[in-house]
Amino acid sequence: MNRVYNFSAGPSMLPLPVLEKAAAEMVCYGESGMSVMEMSHRSPDYEAIIQDAEAMLRRLMNIPENYKVLFLQGGASTQFAAVPLNLIKRTGKADYVVSGQFSGKAFKEAQKLGYDVKCIATTKDDNFSHVPVVTRDMIRPDAAYLHICFNNTIYGTKYSYIPDTGDIPLVADLSSCIISEPIDVSRFGVIYAGAQKNMAPAGLTLVIVREDLLDYAEEKMPTMLEWKTMAENGSMYNTPPCYTIYMAKLVYEWILNLGGLTVMQEMNLKKAALLYDYLDSQDYYIAPVAKESRSIMNVTFVTGDADLDKKFASEAGKAGLKNLKGHRSVGGMRASIYNAMPYEGVEALVAFMKEFAANNPKA
Amino acid sequence: MNRVYNFSAGPSMLPLPVLEKAAAEMVCYGESGMSVMEMSHRSPDYEAIIQDAEAMLRRLMNIPENYKVLFLQGGASTQFAAVPLNLIKRTGKADYVVSGQFSGKAFKEAQKLGYDVKCIATTKDDNFSHVPVVTRDMIRPDAAYLHICFNNTIYGTKYSYIPDTGDIPLVADLSSCIISEPIDVSRFGVIYAGAQKNMAPAGLTLVIVREDLLDYAEEKMPTMLEWKTMAENGSMYNTPPCYTIYMAKLVYEWILNLGGLTVMQEMNLKKAALLYDYLDSQDYYIAPVAKESRSIMNVTFVTGDADLDKKFASEAGKAGLKNLKGHRSVGGMRASIYNAMPYEGVEALVAFMKEFAANNPKA
Repeated sequence: MNRVYNFSAGPSMLPLPVLEKAAAEMVCYGESGMSVMEMSHRSPDYEAIIQDAEAMLRRLMNIPENYKVLFLQGGASTQFAAVPLNLIKRTGKADYVVSGQFSGKAFKEAQKLGYDVKCIATTKDDNFSHVPVVTRDMIRPDAAYLHICFNNTIYGTKYSYIPDTGDIPLVADLSSCIISEPIDVSRFGVIYAGAQKNMAPAGLTLVIVREDLLDYAEEKMPTMLEWKTMAENGSMYNTPPCYTIYMAKLVYEWILNLGGLTVMQEMNLKKAALLYDYLDSQDYYIAPVAKESRSIMNVTFVTGDADLDKKFASEAGKAGLKNLKGHRSVGGMRASIYNAMPYEGVEALVAFMKEFAANNPKA
Repeated sequence: MNRVYNFSAGPSMLPLPVLEKAAAEMVCYGESGMSVMEMSHRSPDYEAIIQDAEAMLRRLMNIPENYKVLFLQGGASTQFAAVPLNLIKRTGKADYVVSGQFSGKAFKEAQKLGYDVKCIATTKDDNFSHVPVVTRDMIRPDAAYLHICFNNTIYGTKYSYIPDTGDIPLVADLSSCIISEPIDVSRFGVIYAGAQKNMAPAGLTLVIVREDLLDYAEEKMPTMLEWKTMAENGSMYNTPPCYTIYMAKLVYEWILNLGGLTVMQEMNLKKAALLYDYLDSQDYYIAPVAKESRSIMNVTFVTGDADLDKKFASEAGKAGLKNLKGHRSVGGMRASIYNAMPYEGVEALVAFMKEFAANNPKA
């Protein structure tokens, strides 16, 4: 076994102890005589798993009691439709901030469904190199919600603050930063996240929704997209993605055993600092993101020469530092350093960056 | 490791060699240096997996070239909405056969979405103990499609024939009988199936759709439910349920190595015959399903005494024969004997049934 450092933006690294435990339990889980994959979702063994997963996540994120936790399918992209379908009836219109590709897709999906939605701020003209400043007065007073994407995976940006929306529910896509640090859930109306970056393999979508927001669903919408139906059935209106929820449980357990999100945040800040400090100390690589908007999960940089960028990603891959190529829509490099990326992985990356810069002087 | 015989209706047994391979490859897949769970869905390693999965399924089911294969999320329940959203625009109305709980849910979902749908046949008055006879003249000539559920998991019934619908596309839920026997795909417009019975762990939904049926999607529908969008993006419009697709690939491979669906069918018929022949040979247990509608995947039976039924399921469980309790809506017993259930499991069940009958004479 020769594991690499995998800087993929998602699906991405999982903690090695989690993978080892999953492997050990694959054929037979505890005394059950079967794999978790084979369990009826209505069996006591499986109910214990999903209940533990929820309890651990609640503990980890300190989720208030008046919020429901839903384990769903379909990815954040399905929630781009589910958000307006479940919420817009509150007032009939909604506001969006477009800070990157995924928030743009969320906005367009609401438009496609025929809703009155408004983009109140965007940093498109700055190539999404920072997130917009969002203040309360920018939001339409009768907006059903304000939608933001809290960490922009592709550009490597993140809000350094939670926008104050007053009484208007804040809906946030946290796909690429969920459980990377403590966050005040009570400041949000809805949080959703695809699991495949920081939480579990692909195929699980987490929705955390304040109970009073469950009553605005459209009548003529697919039942499977109704948060209320899923909440009333404990995420088991139909068969949930059982095994992926089990994997999420193992990840939650791993973080709790490390000391929870405060410890996780310390570890993540330390990793990000190592990389950003190096980037700030030299001029071979350029970090395009404004300092106040820097993500600690996705770190983007370029050499300024597309051919060199290509060579970098290729040679890094050969050195066991995988998937450092930036998103196909922006180019350059991106190092995704989620919870499961060890400090040693970032050390190895910085060492490689220094070596590459020395060996490949610019013209 | 002491594995049980798991008669669960789904999620259900997976082939032991598949689980063992998954366990062995969990931490490191081939030369990739990572788990399949950690792979970017855009990486060459993962693209090979999803392409192999599709190629194997096409070979296994002999899927014609003018059909698209989609690997989706959300379960058959999501397709209950996706079917009318993608197809009803063809003519504006659609017909349904209600042969059990899930076909009933599919019908109600189309009604809920506000569509002109008609139930053209149901066996509700016979407690769904057989499937209806469906002939071409029963279908409205301007129906956009006819929807059926081919194997009814809860009741243990199955169509013994593919209804002739003429030019009207036949849409079938094959969740509980997919890849259990050869089937002529060209007789269907759309086949869909949740994976968690015969194909993979829960969290994957298969859709096989004839290409000419991709052009009728509603404009204002969630993008993630549009078959055409998923087809145009090779099931990768967003991150697919990568690991569950890998598991499906291992299952397809297992069946191909056994000799394909003709061999699988022989094995399944042999298992079902063992159980039905015993049921027909005695009068302690009653098999409620009409002979011509018997499923070879889900076999239902009762003692005629609810207390005895309860005792049966409980004592069978203690003897390592798990999940024999019938669905909560019908009671009695149900033995789901999907592809992965070995013949020895059915032998053990029949032996237990004989012993139980001898030890528990009826009053």
